[in-house]
Amino acid sequence: MVDDGGLGAIPKTIEWRDGIVRMIDQRRLPSELCFLEAGSVYELCNAISSLAVRGAPALGVAGAMGVALAAYFGEDPRAAAERIIATRPTAVNLRWGVERALSAADPVAEAKAILAEDIAVNRQLGRVGARLLPTAARVLTHCNAGSLACGGYGTALGVIRAAHEAGLSPVVCVDETRPLLQGSRLTAWELSRLGIPATVLVDSAAASLMARAEVDCVIVGADRIAANGDVANKIGTYSLAVLAHYHHLPFYVAAPLSTVDFGSPNGAAIPLEQRGEDEVSSVGDQRLTSPGTRVINPAFDVTPAKLVTGIVTEAGVATCPYRRSLVRLAETSLRRPRRKGERRTTAPPSATS
Amino acid sequence: MVDDGGLGAIPKTIEWRDGIVRMIDQRRLPSELCFLEAGSVYELCNAISSLAVRGAPALGVAGAMGVALAAYFGEDPRAAAERIIATRPTAVNLRWGVERALSAADPVAEAKAILAEDIAVNRQLGRVGARLLPTAARVLTHCNAGSLACGGYGTALGVIRAAHEAGLSPVVCVDETRPLLQGSRLTAWELSRLGIPATVLVDSAAASLMARAEVDCVIVGADRIAANGDVANKIGTYSLAVLAHYHHLPFYVAAPLSTVDFGSPNGAAIPLEQRGEDEVSSVGDQRLTSPGTRVINPAFDVTPAKLVTGIVTEAGVATCPYRRSLVRLAETSLRRPRRKGERRTTAPPSATS
Repeated sequence: MVDDGGLGAIPKTIEWRDGIVRMIDQRRLPSELCFLEAGSVYELCNAISSLAVRGAPALGVAGAMGVALAAYFGEDPRAAAERIIATRPTAVNLRWGVERALSAADPVAEAKAILAEDIAVNRQLGRVGARLLPTAARVLTHCNAGSLACGGYGTALGVIRAAHEAGLSPVVCVDETRPLLQGSRLTAWELSRLGIPATVLVDSAAASLMARAEVDCVIVGADRIAANGDVANKIGTYSLAVLAHYHHLPFYVAAPLSTVDFGSPNGAAIPLEQRGEDEVSSVGDQRLTSPGTRVINPAFDVTPAKLVTGIVTEAGVATCPYRRSLVRLAETSLRRPRRKGERRTTAPPSATS
Repeated sequence: MVDDGGLGAIPKTIEWRDGIVRMIDQRRLPSELCFLEAGSVYELCNAISSLAVRGAPALGVAGAMGVALAAYFGEDPRAAAERIIATRPTAVNLRWGVERALSAADPVAEAKAILAEDIAVNRQLGRVGARLLPTAARVLTHCNAGSLACGGYGTALGVIRAAHEAGLSPVVCVDETRPLLQGSRLTAWELSRLGIPATVLVDSAAASLMARAEVDCVIVGADRIAANGDVANKIGTYSLAVLAHYHHLPFYVAAPLSTVDFGSPNGAAIPLEQRGEDEVSSVGDQRLTSPGTRVINPAFDVTPAKLVTGIVTEAGVATCPYRRSLVRLAETSLRRPRRKGERRTTAPPSATS
């Protein structure tokens, strides 16, 4: 039924089909598995801002495919690039993907290459991270950093998936992740398709699970990692990092090196998207607050590097001090022999100097 | 329009009307202000288990009125008492109210007295707690510990309300409080009626507000306080206590002395209610998880006394070491001259020995 491109039980998050960007419409999961087809930059921008497609690595692919769409239809790729980048300010991969496609001779081929690389990078990152997990690890995760957040395979869920494939039998506690419930809607759905045991809980219950020693570690994804290791990710990530610290639990971030923004010296330099009140004040047709109630809806928070035990990348695990460790991993990644058809991630400023 | 019994803009949570217990149906707020009338113990038990009426002090009143209903209709009050107590295991006030009505010569008069006392006690508790707040305090609260959770006035919100009435201009950050959203549905509604500025946020955003120094203190209510000061309250309370500790913010619990259970030596002795999966896996008609997804839904957690800066009661603020401090306040309360019509709260074991 589903062409999974070798990724197991989960259909392709995003793919290029001759002038069409075909994506899982993530807003409709888990009730319905629908595919949205964007045939113009306008439609793609709508898909990105409405979160039909989301997740930092997937946005990198979507951004590149947006430039590819413009090139394919003979539009100005630079104007398209600006519109695409403006849709979501926090995930650095969006800009990264757009710029890679923009600087390539063939944006369509480049976008396809970014997708293929993303999956390969996540598989590698998963293998690296799985080594950190004990057998039968009880892993707490937040939001969705799975196949749906990426070209495929997943980052935080990629680590869990690699551990599962290696016979380590991880079990997962899934924060539902208000307001948009990517945990209960997307992560639980993915884990169920992969046959990995999962339990959903409200976000505020994570602390009591930790207090009862029912969690061994926390693994989350990232939307942008500053050069010093500060991590911008889904709102609630910082809360989990403080709670893990208090309960002496490892707190891991899993992200490809393309999520590291060497141009942001620290978390304070990362723009944090504020989203609409409706995401908090209603669910579907159901109104949760009385009219006129003031709501704040920060989509992201910043976890300071000192609360992060390790950042799992495709080139290895970065640890404190992160500034040096991340540069070293980026350099390692550049020195590694090229795989067939592989293009390079952008080098960090200090690695090119 | 609304007979507020001198409690301001918020209608009566619960009252006795000649063989009828009339309650605000809190499940339907903030969309509709409806009143549910229970004319039998069976109907009252349904109202309690379905959370039409909830909140520890309000459950104390409801429990007493349940026994009053049995007595009024010539049923066996002891059998009624057992059924009522079985509806919710954590809030100690339920048992306390039931037992007070059961041991009174006139359960109807006793139930009415408990309601009147509860309001008076909360007003007093509010005045005590308001002294802890700086001018223009930015207070974070969780769940609903307001008029709706009590006979009237509120405990945690009573403190905020007393500060507001004293011209201290508090502003409130309201955790939405998943799964049942008592924060966004009830607390925001109450504060809006009282003209106190309030902002709703998802529970997991509280940490980032603290990190940005946008919160001065946390005040919550309690469902049961153990003799050593451990506090059972709505799931997410423990999380806030850890976060407040990490950010060096005061963490206050506001509760009448009737919430202190001197029979529970510590938090481990408090039974914690687990509620149904549906509360997490759907909102209204909207299904949030795919069928078969495992969900855990602990309704309460326990905050250890060491994370609590102070417990605000009608007799003063208990502080560490709580065992001694709580007994002293209970003794003070017993020595205080009786107000007209007032009955006494049950004395702690060590205070009567």
